[in-house]
Amino acid sequence: MPVNLIAPDASALAPIAGVELGVAQAGIRKAGRTDTLVMRFAPDTTAAGVFTRNRFCAAPVRVCREHLAATGGRLRALVVNTGNANAGTGARGLADARRTCERLAAELGVDVAEVLPFSTGVILEPLPVERLEAALVPAIANLAPDNWARAAEAIMTTDTVPKAASRTGRTEAGGFAVTGISKGAGMIRPNMATMLGFIATDAAVPPALLAKWVREAADASFNRITVDGDTSTNDSLVLAATGAGELVLADESSPGAGELRDAIFEVATTLAQAIVRDGEGATKFITIQVEGAGHADEAAAVAYAIAHSPLVKTAFFASDPNLGRLLCAIGYAGIEDLDVERVDVWLDDVHVATAGGVHPAYREADGQRVMKQAEITIRVALGRGGFSTTVWTCDLSHDYVSINADYRS
Amino acid sequence: MPVNLIAPDASALAPIAGVELGVAQAGIRKAGRTDTLVMRFAPDTTAAGVFTRNRFCAAPVRVCREHLAATGGRLRALVVNTGNANAGTGARGLADARRTCERLAAELGVDVAEVLPFSTGVILEPLPVERLEAALVPAIANLAPDNWARAAEAIMTTDTVPKAASRTGRTEAGGFAVTGISKGAGMIRPNMATMLGFIATDAAVPPALLAKWVREAADASFNRITVDGDTSTNDSLVLAATGAGELVLADESSPGAGELRDAIFEVATTLAQAIVRDGEGATKFITIQVEGAGHADEAAAVAYAIAHSPLVKTAFFASDPNLGRLLCAIGYAGIEDLDVERVDVWLDDVHVATAGGVHPAYREADGQRVMKQAEITIRVALGRGGFSTTVWTCDLSHDYVSINADYRS
Repeated sequence: MPVNLIAPDASALAPIAGVELGVAQAGIRKAGRTDTLVMRFAPDTTAAGVFTRNRFCAAPVRVCREHLAATGGRLRALVVNTGNANAGTGARGLADARRTCERLAAELGVDVAEVLPFSTGVILEPLPVERLEAALVPAIANLAPDNWARAAEAIMTTDTVPKAASRTGRTEAGGFAVTGISKGAGMIRPNMATMLGFIATDAAVPPALLAKWVREAADASFNRITVDGDTSTNDSLVLAATGAGELVLADESSPGAGELRDAIFEVATTLAQAIVRDGEGATKFITIQVEGAGHADEAAAVAYAIAHSPLVKTAFFASDPNLGRLLCAIGYAGIEDLDVERVDVWLDDVHVATAGGVHPAYREADGQRVMKQAEITIRVALGRGGFSTTVWTCDLSHDYVSINADYRS
Repeated sequence: MPVNLIAPDASALAPIAGVELGVAQAGIRKAGRTDTLVMRFAPDTTAAGVFTRNRFCAAPVRVCREHLAATGGRLRALVVNTGNANAGTGARGLADARRTCERLAAELGVDVAEVLPFSTGVILEPLPVERLEAALVPAIANLAPDNWARAAEAIMTTDTVPKAASRTGRTEAGGFAVTGISKGAGMIRPNMATMLGFIATDAAVPPALLAKWVREAADASFNRITVDGDTSTNDSLVLAATGAGELVLADESSPGAGELRDAIFEVATTLAQAIVRDGEGATKFITIQVEGAGHADEAAAVAYAIAHSPLVKTAFFASDPNLGRLLCAIGYAGIEDLDVERVDVWLDDVHVATAGGVHPAYREADGQRVMKQAEITIRVALGRGGFSTTVWTCDLSHDYVSINADYRS
């Protein structure tokens, strides 16, 4: 039951000149499911990515890093499979990921280092690489520029809604389009990276600028979401620029760069929030704003302590304003010299706590009213300095347990 | 559905010479529930405690710290109420805790600084202090040395089984007895402290040695358990020595000190494990052993990453050997230079993972067999050094969500 999230209308997703997408059924985990995506990019496409910091990173993540480093940020194709993460698969997993890239490169007549592989699904099981290879041909046959909606569907695992977003703009230097897709619902606590996300623009952007923007965009979007605090082995966000449109950037000061950057950030934020809205079992979309922190790490520590507390999350599921749990989480966030007398907490516009205790004007009925909403903002003022952050999360429901207890069945 | 945990038999709990216990019904949260405990100690009793590191610590925790510091570790009485944590209650909460101590001191004719207050229950709501005060008189009238089992019941909140343990011993320097009680089932991730735990011995022990032992015992027991990762505002463990028995210790090298220390640690460990066995919604008792760490913090980080992962915990609830989730948690535990090729993982005696992937001899049926047990040991060897740790936790079930969604109703 996603929170205010509906499947994207295919007609609302702008095709990106220089990008084609094709899907197929490889039967990786279940027969009859579209589980394979191939994307083909125009010859001059530049790209940059950010990837999981999980030390047990998946084999395809290792290959992505190698290939992007080898080419200095050039991209001709990528392949995504669901149903199997190709993580915790040792040397064989690495060979499987390389073999998949080699086969796709041969089929498309491009250099193997210009191909990036991505996998998502169960960890610690070998990738059925023959089935994936066999699906590359029908996926290539399916390549088309207007396939973004089908591509968003193809990369889903426990997602209940495909995730895609699009922005177009016009600048003094020419028009541009940005379209992206993402997947993810559980094992979500991106750490300087994301779940799977692919964003493309038709502008021409140098690789160094793309690399800067993809880091900044991830920090402002995918790195601010959490469902269950588990950082995946496969998190990947790739930003590609085909140069097949009108807008050509030399650097960040080029005309139109600001507008394009804003559009990329908006697409990334929409895709990241979509992951939380579709969080496993989610019934509430919760925005946590922490301000007045002494430095950025403090703000993040408090925001994530709240966002990861099972007690806070179950109270939100129950619409129960058991708000002492918020103070408890703030208290154990690790700020050793926190002066609780200076902490204030609001639920939307309701002032809940002040001076180490409940606000004198707080009434349970006011807390109850906000807790019943599908979208809620928790605001915490620490009274220590000028740093702030925002994190998005969801509640913890019976369905989260059901989904993850039954994940492989 | 606690895991291999039954209510202690009252006859198995050794009375401690110099300790009397009395219970009463104050109606703190619900009428007709025994929610108040008073313990009275002989005149020469020494005591030491460890308390929560949560910055939003409860008012009674602040008063405990003040009183123990003021007396240098002397104790004549303590009072515990359930149903209300007296945390997040600001200046009024502090006044309420002091007033409770003053009233009990007056009733018993002891110094107020020799009285310690404890509360557990809902945070952010004012303590109904008049009702608690009124219950002190009947609790005092109920004081008796053989009331340990009733005391263990009186301090329960979401606990389903009262928790108590007892050891007696005989040394060359005389006999001794150690008996303790604890409570806790949720909001459990003690941080250099515990949920509520009270352990008493009839030996004579100097305050400095008690203070050392209570820290060490907490580190070996209550500081190694976690249910949901939430460090409570009220965690407290108090160790008291009445000196009313035979054994008299001058320091840690005195005859009999080793035997008494062992008994105290055994009681503390049994009480701590009982909290996990009775963890909210628990169906499995899980021991996590991490060895081969480069330092102690690394071992703890890996153990707690596993213990706090909702994905690991739901897989254990489902008895599903989805063991890639263990590798994922190890990978995001924060060891930046972890060489995953050197990590080994066992489930009881089943070798699950090695060399960055699944062990060649691992069979799903073997993992399945272990996962179906009620007690499971996860062993992780990091291959980095000689440090190790053990943490005890439980699984995450539908009942955890139900219990915490309905906590205040």
